[in-house]
Amino acid sequence: MKRTTYLTLLPPEEARARWFKDLDAAAFTLGEEQAPLTKALRRVLSRPVAALRSSPAFHGAAMDGIAVHAEDTFSASARKPLRLKIGAEAHWINTGRPLPQGCNAVVMMEHVHLECVQGPHAEEQWAVIEKAAFPWQHVRKMGEDMVATEIILPPGTSLGPYDLGALAAGGVLDVPVFRRPWVSIIPSGSEIVPLAEAREEDLRAGRALPEFNSLIFSAMIAEAGGEAAVLPVVPDEPAAIRDAVAAALETADLVILNAGSSAGSHDFTAHVLEGMGTVTAHGVAVMPGKPTVLAVAGGKPVIGVPGYPVSAGIAMEEFVLPLLALWQRRCPPEREKIRAVPCNPLPSRPGMEERLRVKLGCVGDTVVAVPLARGAGAVTSLSRADGIVRIPRDSEGCNAGEPVEVELLRPHAALAGALLAIGSHDNTLDLLDSLLRKAHPQFRLTSAHVGSLGGLMALKRGQCHLAGSHLLDPASGVYNRKAIEDNLDEPVVLLRLVDREQGLLTAPGNPLGIAGIEDLARPGVRFVNRQRGSGTRVLLDYRLERLGLAPGRISGYCDEEYTHMNVAAAVLSGRADAGLAVRAAANALGLPFIPVGVEEYDLVIPRRFFAGDAVQALLEVIRGAAFRQAVERMGGYGTEKTGQIVWEYAGKRAGLS
Amino acid sequence: MKRTTYLTLLPPEEARARWFKDLDAAAFTLGEEQAPLTKALRRVLSRPVAALRSSPAFHGAAMDGIAVHAEDTFSASARKPLRLKIGAEAHWINTGRPLPQGCNAVVMMEHVHLECVQGPHAEEQWAVIEKAAFPWQHVRKMGEDMVATEIILPPGTSLGPYDLGALAAGGVLDVPVFRRPWVSIIPSGSEIVPLAEAREEDLRAGRALPEFNSLIFSAMIAEAGGEAAVLPVVPDEPAAIRDAVAAALETADLVILNAGSSAGSHDFTAHVLEGMGTVTAHGVAVMPGKPTVLAVAGGKPVIGVPGYPVSAGIAMEEFVLPLLALWQRRCPPEREKIRAVPCNPLPSRPGMEERLRVKLGCVGDTVVAVPLARGAGAVTSLSRADGIVRIPRDSEGCNAGEPVEVELLRPHAALAGALLAIGSHDNTLDLLDSLLRKAHPQFRLTSAHVGSLGGLMALKRGQCHLAGSHLLDPASGVYNRKAIEDNLDEPVVLLRLVDREQGLLTAPGNPLGIAGIEDLARPGVRFVNRQRGSGTRVLLDYRLERLGLAPGRISGYCDEEYTHMNVAAAVLSGRADAGLAVRAAANALGLPFIPVGVEEYDLVIPRRFFAGDAVQALLEVIRGAAFRQAVERMGGYGTEKTGQIVWEYAGKRAGLS
Repeated sequence: MKRTTYLTLLPPEEARARWFKDLDAAAFTLGEEQAPLTKALRRVLSRPVAALRSSPAFHGAAMDGIAVHAEDTFSASARKPLRLKIGAEAHWINTGRPLPQGCNAVVMMEHVHLECVQGPHAEEQWAVIEKAAFPWQHVRKMGEDMVATEIILPPGTSLGPYDLGALAAGGVLDVPVFRRPWVSIIPSGSEIVPLAEAREEDLRAGRALPEFNSLIFSAMIAEAGGEAAVLPVVPDEPAAIRDAVAAALETADLVILNAGSSAGSHDFTAHVLEGMGTVTAHGVAVMPGKPTVLAVAGGKPVIGVPGYPVSAGIAMEEFVLPLLALWQRRCPPEREKIRAVPCNPLPSRPGMEERLRVKLGCVGDTVVAVPLARGAGAVTSLSRADGIVRIPRDSEGCNAGEPVEVELLRPHAALAGALLAIGSHDNTLDLLDSLLRKAHPQFRLTSAHVGSLGGLMALKRGQCHLAGSHLLDPASGVYNRKAIEDNLDEPVVLLRLVDREQGLLTAPGNPLGIAGIEDLARPGVRFVNRQRGSGTRVLLDYRLERLGLAPGRISGYCDEEYTHMNVAAAVLSGRADAGLAVRAAANALGLPFIPVGVEEYDLVIPRRFFAGDAVQALLEVIRGAAFRQAVERMGGYGTEKTGQIVWEYAGKRAGLS
Repeated sequence: MKRTTYLTLLPPEEARARWFKDLDAAAFTLGEEQAPLTKALRRVLSRPVAALRSSPAFHGAAMDGIAVHAEDTFSASARKPLRLKIGAEAHWINTGRPLPQGCNAVVMMEHVHLECVQGPHAEEQWAVIEKAAFPWQHVRKMGEDMVATEIILPPGTSLGPYDLGALAAGGVLDVPVFRRPWVSIIPSGSEIVPLAEAREEDLRAGRALPEFNSLIFSAMIAEAGGEAAVLPVVPDEPAAIRDAVAAALETADLVILNAGSSAGSHDFTAHVLEGMGTVTAHGVAVMPGKPTVLAVAGGKPVIGVPGYPVSAGIAMEEFVLPLLALWQRRCPPEREKIRAVPCNPLPSRPGMEERLRVKLGCVGDTVVAVPLARGAGAVTSLSRADGIVRIPRDSEGCNAGEPVEVELLRPHAALAGALLAIGSHDNTLDLLDSLLRKAHPQFRLTSAHVGSLGGLMALKRGQCHLAGSHLLDPASGVYNRKAIEDNLDEPVVLLRLVDREQGLLTAPGNPLGIAGIEDLARPGVRFVNRQRGSGTRVLLDYRLERLGLAPGRISGYCDEEYTHMNVAAAVLSGRADAGLAVRAAANALGLPFIPVGVEEYDLVIPRRFFAGDAVQALLEVIRGAAFRQAVERMGGYGTEKTGQIVWEYAGKRAGLS
């Protein structure tokens, strides 16, 4: 079979630089248009804009008081106060009002003593001052803020609210802005169908793949100031692709050809584009994102973006967004960087830079990075990520605990409110996060699923704020306490989240008639297991031991999943005949459920975090009616002890003293 | 005169907390609406959204290769390779395609040896493998990314491009979002006129003030997810204000009453609102922003926002935006904070928190903060600011060089490309900034005007990258060199920016017939001077000395301005009859210009910055044709030596060795 060969893979920065050079991108001039200020928010100035009028437009009072001619007051002193007649030598004035003709200073109200005298015709007011005014004191002078003809804003400014105000103050009501760059997006691939037309049965059979990259791209382009047009899906045929690109190039400034998902589709792309112009790069040394094709056709940029969304995202961020920024003379998008400690090792293949998305939490003084799924197709890793770790091409990766640089995808400040839960998976954690955000938008619960024991280990290393755990001690039949005593040094609070029913999930209709754990050893029954260190695995092993069943007798014992929901999905898809999981997972996917037992699912929370605002907010939610009701609706949960502190562990040192 | 008394001024955080409590803001529920994904960018989810389908929807190949039933391959080994017939026991498969019925593993292409054999009817293909496949190897399993019913995104999520992708992958095409909060803006003030209706002569006479706060507010509200309606301007009359607020409250979720500029207008506001409901705060302990009024009327929030734009901005940021965020269950907006060193002292009045806007530059390892004009009306300070310094209410301010905390208004990364110029003012610096940004969008030139000598002092303290200077040594008649030798320790490059004509600016038509410096001493001639330490002031003093004229004989010698343009504005406005400035300033405002001499305006650049990318980019622009031509168009400049290194200073230590 023909294999794609990437002979000379350039690092992304170098590929981008060469592409921009081949394009002569810095010389390209977007058209301009005039935008009224009311329609100019976030438009980008195409040239410097100068003030048409000075601001303020007149000499005005900067204080409430009396306006005077300073030279008239030079004789005033405490010993010899000066009397000025209001309406003649002095004039009441409020802040912001223009100085009357002949005046060049303001005396603050606080320094004016008022005398009222019955004059020949009416009452007369006299202002008495004990200090000379110097010229232009307390006057906001004409042009103090800006003088007509001065530049208010430079080109490349993305107009924010205050910029609009500054322009208005300078008398500028219409501004020259770059016209939006026009980007045409061509989705390709023979099995690709528009999102709204995807039929469930075709999707399940793999006959159709819903097209949603163009939705992501259009949104990215809109946020970068461009205007995207999504063209009809083109099949994986060179002639069809060529025609579509040629047609798009007639109007667009930039054409994005989104490759099909088939292995050779980026070769099609490169082949077609070679025939239409120059290919700057066929493949880039970055994972995900490798099969990106950069080309110039008809003097315009064409980019072949890989089909998988994570790869596609990197191609967009590395090549399309910087080009749109350059065209609009804007700073290339750049992200804030911080140091974080990964909670797991991050192995990587040398020779290729790798971008790994992570969740982040500030635990004490440490920012902890929890790696998300790596697959190029893992679209949830895009939406869940708080940051990106770049593992350089010459590296084999990073060890757990070794600090790495992380590019932030959310404002740094937003991290402060994130409670990081590492440990056992339970669906109620997602529910808890939603309710917490609703009640306290400044907080959120970020959870990573590594099993109960993994959670206790993360707590021990100081890498999370709390851990979900349901570890049965086979000897005593008691949950969690022994594992905490065996593994943790610091004092913790054990808080009951839920009691939950564990049981066997089977295929719809339970065709194999599975009735309990003992049936898992029957020939022809394929099991799907949870990973080592998970409480569910401990429960299974405990039951197997009591039944005297060796794990080796269970087909699929080594087939591991990391969450209850993935166990349920494995059973639903027919990959396995049975799995052990919580009832809520069975209910969610409509699978039969054979109860095995009720277990205690607790949160283990170090004392030092317990009194913090975030944990207290979480506690309030856990103890609230909304959480209880929603949990009960999920089925398979007991909430009698929900929110109760079931045990307090004094820690190792206390235990020894 | 009645003085406003602020009896109990609360700090802004406390005022906000009380207002939210009076409003019961956390309990307020915005309505919801369904948004199709194509219209959902940056809308905010009103509830958690769960996946409607699993993704991937089928078990698919994660590698190119052959799909097999793993159990069929268990006998394969290097010693005893296994042959599988393609089309029967093994199937070619590309990445992403669904596994054929009966298959549960993929063997990578690299591990497959292909044999072609002439069979009875046609050529037969056989795959030969030397290693067993384990079940589910190289398979992207159904639900690996998300399982139907799992929560994709929590409420309060502002939907970004990748979020739209994750929702689409989960089969969700419409999402529940908060309806946009409705905000009505009522501009008030008897002299206020809509922006487009402001007539030049009325503005200059102070009879009309253009209304542009509503433009700023509307943009801020739009960016915060709300929808603003700007109502007609209301005069400063309690009854009119009451009626307008009452009408607005019928439909709006929040009413912003923008106070007039007159002194008592916030008292009107507070008085009117007391009659309509509860006033939580009449005045807040923050400068600018003090005259803010927070109220609840008809159960809804009403805020009286001060008239000056800087005060208004703070009221919006402190009260309106957090309320809109809370309603949408979003994180309150928070800014990244860094440490910076102010280049000037920042005095402040105790008893009142002060917010001071600053420009920022990274000079070596130090972030330097240059304070912008403080006035509540200085709208350019809003658009030019890179950050905000908060001077606490119990502080009398900060000393120069003493680090302060700065809230960033631009991404940290954008600061890296800013060259900070502190020193003499020249209009060509703004031009240079525009051309630099156009040629190299990653760089910009930020300049602060403190006069030539102030610039050298800033260089000496390591607080800027370069300084514009035109300091004449009266003894030798040579520019800049002596001042550099006297003041700087480190090696610097002296680069000619421009030669420029200095001269006297007079009122249009030169009614006083001013012909030269000597005329400034004539009775009845009012002069406007530049500040001490400026090169222009040095030039004036030099000329006065040569003429034997004592400064005391010049009226207005002590009336100081900081820029050429402000001198020109002072003359144009009639505040002075003459000033000394560059010809370009006279040309800009159309004033007569009487030449006094040509001087050398240089950039002083430390050696250690000279070779850097940013300075080199600046040099390229200075030496380019575009800069030269634009400078010549301004008039009064010579560009013969522009871009030339006119002198190199070896520094103090080198001089001593």
